[in-house]
Amino acid sequence: MYINRFLSPIIVYYYSWRMVLFSLFTGSTAIFVYEYLDWKWVAIPWLPVSLVGTATAFFVGFKNNQSYDRSWEARKVWGAITNHSRSFSAAVRSFTTCSPDSDTISAAIENRTIIYRHIAWLYALKNSMAQRTNWEHKDRASERQRRALRRAQVPCDIEIAKYLPESELALIKDKKNQATQILDLQSQHIRDLRRAGSLDAYQHVALQDLVSKLYDEQGKSERIKNTPFPRQYATTSTLFIFIFMTLLPFGLLPQFLDLGEKFMFLLIPFNMIVSWVFMFMEYVGDISENPFEGLLNDTPVSTIIRNIEIDLKEMLGDDDLPEKLTAYSGTLF
Amino acid sequence: MYINRFLSPIIVYYYSWRMVLFSLFTGSTAIFVYEYLDWKWVAIPWLPVSLVGTATAFFVGFKNNQSYDRSWEARKVWGAITNHSRSFSAAVRSFTTCSPDSDTISAAIENRTIIYRHIAWLYALKNSMAQRTNWEHKDRASERQRRALRRAQVPCDIEIAKYLPESELALIKDKKNQATQILDLQSQHIRDLRRAGSLDAYQHVALQDLVSKLYDEQGKSERIKNTPFPRQYATTSTLFIFIFMTLLPFGLLPQFLDLGEKFMFLLIPFNMIVSWVFMFMEYVGDISENPFEGLLNDTPVSTIIRNIEIDLKEMLGDDDLPEKLTAYSGTLF
Amino acid sequence: MYINRFLSPIIVYYYSWRMVLFSLFTGSTAIFVYEYLDWKWVAIPWLPVSLVGTATAFFVGFKNNQSYDRSWEARKVWGAITNHSRSFSAAVRSFTTCSPDSDTISAAIENRTIIYRHIAWLYALKNSMAQRTNWEHKDRASERQRRALRRAQVPCDIEIAKYLPESELALIKDKKNQATQILDLQSQHIRDLRRAGSLDAYQHVALQDLVSKLYDEQGKSERIKNTPFPRQYATTSTLFIFIFMTLLPFGLLPQFLDLGEKFMFLLIPFNMIVSWVFMFMEYVGDISENPFEGLLNDTPVSTIIRNIEIDLKEMLGDDDLPEKLTAYSGTLF
Amino acid sequence: MYINRFLSPIIVYYYSWRMVLFSLFTGSTAIFVYEYLDWKWVAIPWLPVSLVGTATAFFVGFKNNQSYDRSWEARKVWGAITNHSRSFSAAVRSFTTCSPDSDTISAAIENRTIIYRHIAWLYALKNSMAQRTNWEHKDRASERQRRALRRAQVPCDIEIAKYLPESELALIKDKKNQATQILDLQSQHIRDLRRAGSLDAYQHVALQDLVSKLYDEQGKSERIKNTPFPRQYATTSTLFIFIFMTLLPFGLLPQFLDLGEKFMFLLIPFNMIVSWVFMFMEYVGDISENPFEGLLNDTPVSTIIRNIEIDLKEMLGDDDLPEKLTAYSGTLF
Amino acid sequence: MYINRFLSPIIVYYYSWRMVLFSLFTGSTAIFVYEYLDWKWVAIPWLPVSLVGTATAFFVGFKNNQSYDRSWEARKVWGAITNHSRSFSAAVRSFTTCSPDSDTISAAIENRTIIYRHIAWLYALKNSMAQRTNWEHKDRASERQRRALRRAQVPCDIEIAKYLPESELALIKDKKNQATQILDLQSQHIRDLRRAGSLDAYQHVALQDLVSKLYDEQGKSERIKNTPFPRQYATTSTLFIFIFMTLLPFGLLPQFLDLGEKFMFLLIPFNMIVSWVFMFMEYVGDISENPFEGLLNDTPVSTIIRNIEIDLKEMLGDDDLPEKLTAYSGTLF
Repeated sequence: MYINRFLSPIIVYYYSWRMVLFSLFTGSTAIFVYEYLDWKWVAIPWLPVSLVGTATAFFVGFKNNQSYDRSWEARKVWGAITNHSRSFSAAVRSFTTCSPDSDTISAAIENRTIIYRHIAWLYALKNSMAQRTNWEHKDRASERQRRALRRAQVPCDIEIAKYLPESELALIKDKKNQATQILDLQSQHIRDLRRAGSLDAYQHVALQDLVSKLYDEQGKSERIKNTPFPRQYATTSTLFIFIFMTLLPFGLLPQFLDLGEKFMFLLIPFNMIVSWVFMFMEYVGDISENPFEGLLNDTPVSTIIRNIEIDLKEMLGDDDLPEKLTAYSGTLF
Repeated sequence: MYINRFLSPIIVYYYSWRMVLFSLFTGSTAIFVYEYLDWKWVAIPWLPVSLVGTATAFFVGFKNNQSYDRSWEARKVWGAITNHSRSFSAAVRSFTTCSPDSDTISAAIENRTIIYRHIAWLYALKNSMAQRTNWEHKDRASERQRRALRRAQVPCDIEIAKYLPESELALIKDKKNQATQILDLQSQHIRDLRRAGSLDAYQHVALQDLVSKLYDEQGKSERIKNTPFPRQYATTSTLFIFIFMTLLPFGLLPQFLDLGEKFMFLLIPFNMIVSWVFMFMEYVGDISENPFEGLLNDTPVSTIIRNIEIDLKEMLGDDDLPEKLTAYSGTLF
Repeated sequence: MYINRFLSPIIVYYYSWRMVLFSLFTGSTAIFVYEYLDWKWVAIPWLPVSLVGTATAFFVGFKNNQSYDRSWEARKVWGAITNHSRSFSAAVRSFTTCSPDSDTISAAIENRTIIYRHIAWLYALKNSMAQRTNWEHKDRASERQRRALRRAQVPCDIEIAKYLPESELALIKDKKNQATQILDLQSQHIRDLRRAGSLDAYQHVALQDLVSKLYDEQGKSERIKNTPFPRQYATTSTLFIFIFMTLLPFGLLPQFLDLGEKFMFLLIPFNMIVSWVFMFMEYVGDISENPFEGLLNDTPVSTIIRNIEIDLKEMLGDDDLPEKLTAYSGTLF
Repeated sequence: MYINRFLSPIIVYYYSWRMVLFSLFTGSTAIFVYEYLDWKWVAIPWLPVSLVGTATAFFVGFKNNQSYDRSWEARKVWGAITNHSRSFSAAVRSFTTCSPDSDTISAAIENRTIIYRHIAWLYALKNSMAQRTNWEHKDRASERQRRALRRAQVPCDIEIAKYLPESELALIKDKKNQATQILDLQSQHIRDLRRAGSLDAYQHVALQDLVSKLYDEQGKSERIKNTPFPRQYATTSTLFIFIFMTLLPFGLLPQFLDLGEKFMFLLIPFNMIVSWVFMFMEYVGDISENPFEGLLNDTPVSTIIRNIEIDLKEMLGDDDLPEKLTAYSGTLF
Repeated sequence: MYINRFLSPIIVYYYSWRMVLFSLFTGSTAIFVYEYLDWKWVAIPWLPVSLVGTATAFFVGFKNNQSYDRSWEARKVWGAITNHSRSFSAAVRSFTTCSPDSDTISAAIENRTIIYRHIAWLYALKNSMAQRTNWEHKDRASERQRRALRRAQVPCDIEIAKYLPESELALIKDKKNQATQILDLQSQHIRDLRRAGSLDAYQHVALQDLVSKLYDEQGKSERIKNTPFPRQYATTSTLFIFIFMTLLPFGLLPQFLDLGEKFMFLLIPFNMIVSWVFMFMEYVGDISENPFEGLLNDTPVSTIIRNIEIDLKEMLGDDDLPEKLTAYSGTLF
């Protein structure tokens, strides 16, 4: 998540240069063909271009809206994970120590195990959000960015190992979905507390209910990760913008011819401006589509997890609090 | 669900060829009638065509939005089914084994029966999603696609039989809504566990509550399946696009006449491009309308169920995990 | 709810003929006044007509969207009624039979009474959905349609009488809101079961909670029924379309004059096409506005209730299942 | 809430006459200045007017949408209040009478007190919805309408006094938020029932939960009442429409000059039609903005409360049911 | 939150003067370059300007919508905090006094401590909403406004100190997230009440559940505070409007040239009007983007907290009620 008030010009440049070159090329082609090859008919009427433009605008607008909704939903899911993490931690510690004859020292140990396992669950979920899918950006600039952001982080495996007892680590190692199985361990631990009498029947059900809520948010996060913005919509948007950019300079030609032969070359910069505006509009949606692809516009999963980590450790009274994550060249990740 | 970054050109071709032919025909007709029959008046003013275009764009846009919402809602429902499945499995196993004197071996057997029955419920629900309705696509290309995707799957009946005891299989065989009755069997099994003392009063109610949540999601899935996108909206969208495509070449005629007689034939390709853009826009909505019609853009019910299957079996500690489903020519089904 | 893929041409015809006549009349008037009365000034500039058109398009679009939302919300409410009905039935039967020493035979009788009363509640709610309100369509075609659909159904009173004991029937007969009072009878019956010890404290509250959920959905259904689409929006939409249709042929006149005197009569069909497109667009919203007005585009309450009836009776093990409702000339009601 | 199918012409007239006069004035000014002062340059180009028109249309559209959403949300809140009222009444009566040895007569008295206090709460909430805020309509026509609607109702104070014991009436008299404190009295009464053993622990919590739900809906209603549609959006919409209406006749001038000097006076009526359409569009949003301002388009709080009153009294078996409210010149209030 | 019906002209002036100067400058430049430098080609064709205008309008519209949604969501969160505060207070007081042998005096003391701590939590949360972030407005006018509003308020620290025992104040002083830890203190206090037998098992869980709900709303408020409107969307909107305003006077030139040399200077005021309309439209979204930035359009957190304070103290029967906050030059803060 980029957090400066305005995108830095470098980012805008990186996103734009390819499309700027393309539009300079089409603009020059239009002039060249009209002027030097003397194919006067390439100065096509504006109407068909305008109709294609309308359809393009609709699709691009739609894509922008839905991409925004996907990001915001992802952010909400991880917000809910924050809330449930705090509630879960508060409830576990409150419930296990509420009977007058409860053994507070052993309860504290059990609580720490459960809450540490919860943090391990967060990292396991982060890890499955960090896998690559077919429809994510794979161009070289993205890969470079991804590598840079990754280098600034401790790998999830190490974090998980820090918070999970060795025996459990071995248990979940080969599981297909580690987060699911860690939550299942929580269920079993809570069951054991009930069996040992540390929880009453009612508290048991209430904690199991919180585990269900965590399953809900995990599932929502996985749903957004594993379901692309429907490719029929995305492909169509890209196709339309390509057709529009190709037709544009030819449709603009008749307008610029009126300026006289001397100034018709103005077509090239103006075609570039308009093309850039439309393609950048498309691109804004495109780069906001996948909120967990390891790039600039991601939901800042690592930052959120770190904040939860700090909150939960403060609740436990731990002293070795990890540092809050800071922005890396304007980006929280 | 198509999962490659871009739709393959073949798919675009299959969706488009018919409409391309139609627009080539209307374009040629306009030229022919104007030029050879010399009916000059067919070069109609642009204004009425433009007004029809506006209305068409509105309806098509509306259809695209609502189709997307229907898909996304369907995906959310099956996401929730995933979450509740995990929660249900974790809760059942945790609740039945939490009293200190519970018989863990017989509990494990009961749990396996319940969880297997849950998987059978998933397949029964999938089965009712796979029925055909009046308003789904029935053209030959769709039928071919449907057959191909179906061939790649094990029929639901076989999967259900695998997970349900014979006696229960006989019981639900003639029921009008098998999924409903399987969930009712779950209620009764849980009741029996309560009667046998394996569950306490709270746990019984909590599990019954999870059954209610599964009924909710089943009902939502059936609602989307059995309620078409309102036909008055869908028909109107198709009618308008047909009227627009028919008028378009005549409205474009005056523009292209200005290019001179030699180049007025450019009308035909440009009419085709614009028509294609509008019809494809309509088509994108059209093919996203029914998320359970057994085609390319469906919610990937089989994949989701398989993932649940794996998760639940891993929770039970089973070794014979089924394979994850892989994409079939770019499509998860 | 219409369930064929496309609206039949007859339906489109019935919805359209009046407006087609009106637009033929305005178109002819424009020609007549211009040509025979020689009032040249009636060929007004296009700009004001276009501005009115924009405002009209906005309102019509808004109305279409909100009408769709109202239908879809109504459908969701009745979907939720389905889900809660199944949950309620499963829970009642499961709860009353879970103590080891419960009398299964008398429990079965009680359960049947409760579940039959639930079906009576459904019909009572349907009945209050079938009342007429001030803002529903009352033209002759609508009344004819309504009568036809009504004739195909058993009256609610008969269905209620079938499922409710005589004493209760007498009790609710004069109540202002029968559905509310039937649900209150459910509360009292459940309370009696608790008093008799067939339910424990926890189950009592859980069932009462399901009754609350049914109250919620009943109230939502009544809200949609009793709150019109705000009349200030609806009236404005109709007024604007009327103004637009009246101005349209005069605004189109200058365009068609350019075709020469011989072909200016083309104004009449093209004015008709454009008028039809706009008015039909308005009409699609108009006829989708009230999801419980007893017409073609209603939420199919009868069909949904019948499906619930079948599910609940199958759960009870009844043999005399009623038939599923089938479409009546393409319409589920 | 207006409930006739179409707004009466008188209402449209009352809303419109001022703006019609204004547009007649601007139209005449344009003609006068051009023709008699001979300032030819006032026939300004259309383009800037059209751009202002676009921005205006956007804002007006946005305002219409959000106003509708505010009304609909208000209606939903009061729908939920209906549902929770019924649930609360059913639960209270069911819970207090479910133990075999409960004293049904004294329970009935307690129940009546609680349910009557609930009705008092409804009127207290209505009362706080009836206060005036800074941003509501205060013009003379609105004030007249408000007075007329108010005269047709019994003041809230009288209704509250009818349903609340004298002692409690004295207690809440000086409270800043009476509805909040009445609900607090409910909490305390329920607590007393628990203390007296009429409720078990679980029922106590369940009823307290229903009180929380009532607090939720009260708070939502207060939120809509006390938060204006953001004034920066509302002011901008009004400003833009004023600028647009002022520029419009000057932008239309060149178009109407083409009709020749004789007919350029047609500018005045056409300017009026277009202005009216745009201002009325704005006005529809404006008058739907505040759902509790005591005017025509309000959520019909009194009617809803009366219906709840009837339902609850029927549940109690009371005979002196109040009458349903009827529409007052087409308006339910 | 501004609460007068219309923004005062001074506010409009402050928001506008910079952009008005800019547009006067670009307009004059266009005239100067065309007329005095005689660069006739700067009268560029309208088409490219219009296309940029369309894209701009889309983005600005999108930003306006999303900004509104962010404000409204923030308002909803604080509305929910109001509701849960009332429910929490009612429940705590009701639960701790419901056993027949409960010590009402000591219970009253405990309750006051808990409810005062709740008010401290509100101020702690307000405090974290009052931190500055990277993407909030930092221009001099905003800073001045912020200082003025801040001066009218008691600092949060003082309010927290008023409501929290000294020992707890010391405890939370160095915590990273004070609100989270105060809620955790509530959990522990409730646990202590349970341990002392003042609460039974159900009530304990029910109160813990209310704490979870408060965590939810705290987390939602923090989410909106700490997640900017995505900068790629915001930057693009600003960039586009800048490009549009720069191109606008050159695109308008050909239109105004037609008025003749004498009146082409009219370009300057009309360019200013159109530019102002577009930039103001953008600005309305811009200033509504961050609902907790300490400025005019904020969610009125202080007012809401004060109202809760009054409600809770009235419930406790306190006499020293603080005053309601009043608007400060038209603004509730």
